[in-house]
Amino acid sequence: MIYCLGPKGSYSEMAAKVFSKILGEDNIVCCNSIYDVFQHLENSEGNSYGVVPSENSIEGSVSLTQDLLLEFYDKIKIYGELDVNINHCLVGYNREKIKRIYSHPQALAQCRKYIKKHNWEVIPVSSTAEAVKLVRSMGSEEVGAIASKEAAKLYNLKVLEEGVQDYKNNTTRFILIGKKGLKMKLKGGGIKKSTVILKLIEDRPGALYEILKVFNDFKVNLTRIESRPSKEELGNYIFYIDYITPEKEGELIERLKRHVAYIKHMGSYKVFSRGLNNLSV
Amino acid sequence: MIYCLGPKGSYSEMAAKVFSKILGEDNIVCCNSIYDVFQHLENSEGNSYGVVPSENSIEGSVSLTQDLLLEFYDKIKIYGELDVNINHCLVGYNREKIKRIYSHPQALAQCRKYIKKHNWEVIPVSSTAEAVKLVRSMGSEEVGAIASKEAAKLYNLKVLEEGVQDYKNNTTRFILIGKKGLKMKLKGGGIKKSTVILKLIEDRPGALYEILKVFNDFKVNLTRIESRPSKEELGNYIFYIDYITPEKEGELIERLKRHVAYIKHMGSYKVFSRGLNNLSV
Repeated sequence: MIYCLGPKGSYSEMAAKVFSKILGEDNIVCCNSIYDVFQHLENSEGNSYGVVPSENSIEGSVSLTQDLLLEFYDKIKIYGELDVNINHCLVGYNREKIKRIYSHPQALAQCRKYIKKHNWEVIPVSSTAEAVKLVRSMGSEEVGAIASKEAAKLYNLKVLEEGVQDYKNNTTRFILIGKKGLKMKLKGGGIKKSTVILKLIEDRPGALYEILKVFNDFKVNLTRIESRPSKEELGNYIFYIDYITPEKEGELIERLKRHVAYIKHMGSYKVFSRGLNNLSV
Repeated sequence: MIYCLGPKGSYSEMAAKVFSKILGEDNIVCCNSIYDVFQHLENSEGNSYGVVPSENSIEGSVSLTQDLLLEFYDKIKIYGELDVNINHCLVGYNREKIKRIYSHPQALAQCRKYIKKHNWEVIPVSSTAEAVKLVRSMGSEEVGAIASKEAAKLYNLKVLEEGVQDYKNNTTRFILIGKKGLKMKLKGGGIKKSTVILKLIEDRPGALYEILKVFNDFKVNLTRIESRPSKEELGNYIFYIDYITPEKEGELIERLKRHVAYIKHMGSYKVFSRGLNNLSV
């Protein structure tokens, strides 16, 4: 079973279809929220997987996924990563008549300049596919949606314009998650990466510097560093760090432990990357 | 004139009212979006100000504000900062009858566990005050909003429960922005902070480490470090760094310049911090 963020036609479902081929697992279940994906996994038995968005090249990280990784740390790990090219389309009936645009807040943000140019009112909804569904049910020329070509097809609506995102290079990273200790065989994939979440011992000038010095000493290449509020007070942060998994990862973690209040290893996993255009899903 | 993110009754308007006292400027204009605040400022003459949310202690930074600071760098600077305690309330007619909850996506995220417990359906809208307005216009016991006490009062709806956020310490940071070169006198305020946005020269293991070493050499206390996608490709980041403004800030910036592709100084500004409960606004 692969749980993903729904509804049908969402970019997450498209990513889940890619992982479905890689895993040889056909059963995909669309969930109502990222939280539901984590909860279904927590309660699952046997080989179950989850696919959720973690980061976008324009908008940055998906906060809820980052927070839930920490919250479910005891039970859930990262097993894979997939970068998907996002090609937002204007979907509806008649471009000239549109007054209001429905979409997920991140998609609206990614097309901000395009929408502003047309002076359309924006209405955030829970997903891009949900937006298409809504526009279809309203049946009015005054409304449109920003979503994928696939979502337009699914709900039998016209693609009025393709590639309407403000920046050409729009990629969303999805992660494959599962319960701790799953044995899975992922066909293909490139380099191996790891993710850790850590909290500094105290808030002082050189604390983060010391951490980076350890990575530097081990000649490890960081691919992401992100500070997130620790939820204790403003100015109190935890750090999410991705890096190319080194051979002596155990030693690296041991050295890091000397400088942090805690460090949580979220998994070492294979990296997949392809444009959805090249996939027969 | 003070432009803020509206509508009336929003937390941004509450922050604008605080700055209005500090600045001795009474005219507050509520805008439809954060982008509109920046645009109004760009086109303004004389002493005009803007108040927008920049960061929340639970949800992290407000991506749009961060992106616009960079986009409008040539024209707009940060002149002040204010931390506001957020006290979300459940607003509506009858708690037992509620089935659907309206609010801004960040507020919904901040009350995720509370909402989940009641199994309510969530519907994201453009602001907390807009949610209250909607619930009022629907006039149904089946709907509720997450918003401030002030917004409930403004639209004549009942506060059904106070402090419904999942984490007690929920603070939102607002920044006061204005055109470059404004002369303003801010009464009161605490320490002075600065914000820079920088891009590393190349993507290699020690690049960020070198930057932090400079701050460390100058014994400067960082209060925030945040990586944001550079919008070029995934894995390519720019950094937002806040720090306590040192005496020799010019020297610090000159030293940093040797290690970065670019560094943009967004302003040195006064820090204000108070709970809205203590204010007579």
